[in-house]
Amino acid sequence: MPVLVSGSIALDHIKTPHDEHENLLGGSASYAAMAASFFAPVNLVSIVGKDFPQQHLELFTSRDFRLDGLQRSEGETFRWAGEYFDDMNTRETLDVALNVLEAYKPVVPESYTDATVLLLANDAPVNQMSVIDQFGGKPKFIIADTMDLWITIARDDLLNLLKKIDLLVLNDSEAKQLIDTTNLIHAGDQLRAMGPKYVIIKKGEHGALLFGEHRFFSTGAYPLRNLHDPTGAGDSFIGSVAGYLASLKDEPEVTFDQIASGIVRGTIIAGYTCESFSTHRLQELSQEEFATRLDEFRQFTRFE
Amino acid sequence: MPVLVSGSIALDHIKTPHDEHENLLGGSASYAAMAASFFAPVNLVSIVGKDFPQQHLELFTSRDFRLDGLQRSEGETFRWAGEYFDDMNTRETLDVALNVLEAYKPVVPESYTDATVLLLANDAPVNQMSVIDQFGGKPKFIIADTMDLWITIARDDLLNLLKKIDLLVLNDSEAKQLIDTTNLIHAGDQLRAMGPKYVIIKKGEHGALLFGEHRFFSTGAYPLRNLHDPTGAGDSFIGSVAGYLASLKDEPEVTFDQIASGIVRGTIIAGYTCESFSTHRLQELSQEEFATRLDEFRQFTRFE
Repeated sequence: MPVLVSGSIALDHIKTPHDEHENLLGGSASYAAMAASFFAPVNLVSIVGKDFPQQHLELFTSRDFRLDGLQRSEGETFRWAGEYFDDMNTRETLDVALNVLEAYKPVVPESYTDATVLLLANDAPVNQMSVIDQFGGKPKFIIADTMDLWITIARDDLLNLLKKIDLLVLNDSEAKQLIDTTNLIHAGDQLRAMGPKYVIIKKGEHGALLFGEHRFFSTGAYPLRNLHDPTGAGDSFIGSVAGYLASLKDEPEVTFDQIASGIVRGTIIAGYTCESFSTHRLQELSQEEFATRLDEFRQFTRFE
Repeated sequence: MPVLVSGSIALDHIKTPHDEHENLLGGSASYAAMAASFFAPVNLVSIVGKDFPQQHLELFTSRDFRLDGLQRSEGETFRWAGEYFDDMNTRETLDVALNVLEAYKPVVPESYTDATVLLLANDAPVNQMSVIDQFGGKPKFIIADTMDLWITIARDDLLNLLKKIDLLVLNDSEAKQLIDTTNLIHAGDQLRAMGPKYVIIKKGEHGALLFGEHRFFSTGAYPLRNLHDPTGAGDSFIGSVAGYLASLKDEPEVTFDQIASGIVRGTIIAGYTCESFSTHRLQELSQEEFATRLDEFRQFTRFE
């Protein structure tokens, strides 16, 4: 069944120690949807401006995204410029122009209600909540990502959202910020107590942790020798989890073990994302290449 | 078969946000030997002063350590004082008195040559090399740990040592320091090229990576909700790996998969070490408790 992916679409300008590119397809929804579409059909909810390149729209179409929920505004597309230093381990935002995002209100078309999984990729918590409210009924599984900005400026909205979702995803520094602890295990426990049945804490190159009721799962990241651009790794990680869950046979409830399997798929897809700029590597990725890395990953983590 | 454990023995004075203790049994060899003895008999090589408490010696005896290689000097035992802050995530050394360590030269008794695995726990690289030279013959497997200090002040000695050992163990910041990279996968590859057939990069709460010829293994750490004192976690981790390898049936060569299994045992034992001061938790640890956590750990890392 389809996965609904909502979030931002950006035109990115990215500098790394070795390279620089402009007008790249970026934003949380772009990465998440591209990753999700590797596993399941995507119903996209987002907004672009009149400057949004036709080639990016064609990419969406080539992946069979439903685009009824993609608003085309007369303004300019959201733009982000960033630079990576120090072998991609530190990043600085050089410029942000919200443009069409400034007044953005997501619209969920009626036709999208066949989605079983809702992925609220990184966006203002009020927009994430609005997608849930508009979707109506009871979707099978609701996932939300967030970021440091919303923890700082929209904490109450975020806390409200936590009561409405099944799975919260955030990175380790955000988890520590939201809970005010340095112990990630405590952070996971306490975040679950705030509403979501499941919590994923992303740790970048160190993998991810999953917290459930009396359950815990931990995995490393796929080892990368060649990082070209880590932008969107987290978005494609959670896009993969969401797409994978949507692809499973329609059982009444998502299980902890299914989410753990999704996390492993997500760390592999996120690795591919880092291997080139924008979503370029994901566009060419074959099921065979993915299956090879999944097998490798099983070997990398197997022990007696 | 026995494991030879060489390294330092200290009397530690440790402050944490909640507690403070003096004259604690510490030092790389103490932690490593206590952990190793959970799996195999220990032949200890180290030095203590005349102030070394009888109760600590009795602990060694109670674990059936061979102590012919433990020098008793007229000086004072090596002392270290440190304080932990910020939920144990940062540590400051308050005081170091090398005392008997200053002129220490390890002595390996003839009776120790039944050991199949040599663990050169953290110590000056010249001392580590001296243990190898004195041991003579060809031990089945030689493991060395190191630290930032030796990378800075004894780099050439350390590089020589790398050519004589089978497995190098160091933490992530040390690996980056020694190789001058921020990518741990590159660091592991390059450290292997400097001599050791295997390299373990320890990542604390994020687990550990193992590099071998065309092989890679990654695992998280056992999740800890209650950290009382992380001192010696790394030493007991590698002590467990060494003890586990020594405990295996006497096959001609140690395999990658055996080291991976040792790493999993090591992360569990290191977790216990953090749950109380000094080696206290290890002293009471039962095989049943350990087996329970090993089973849990299998569940924490299992996926389809």
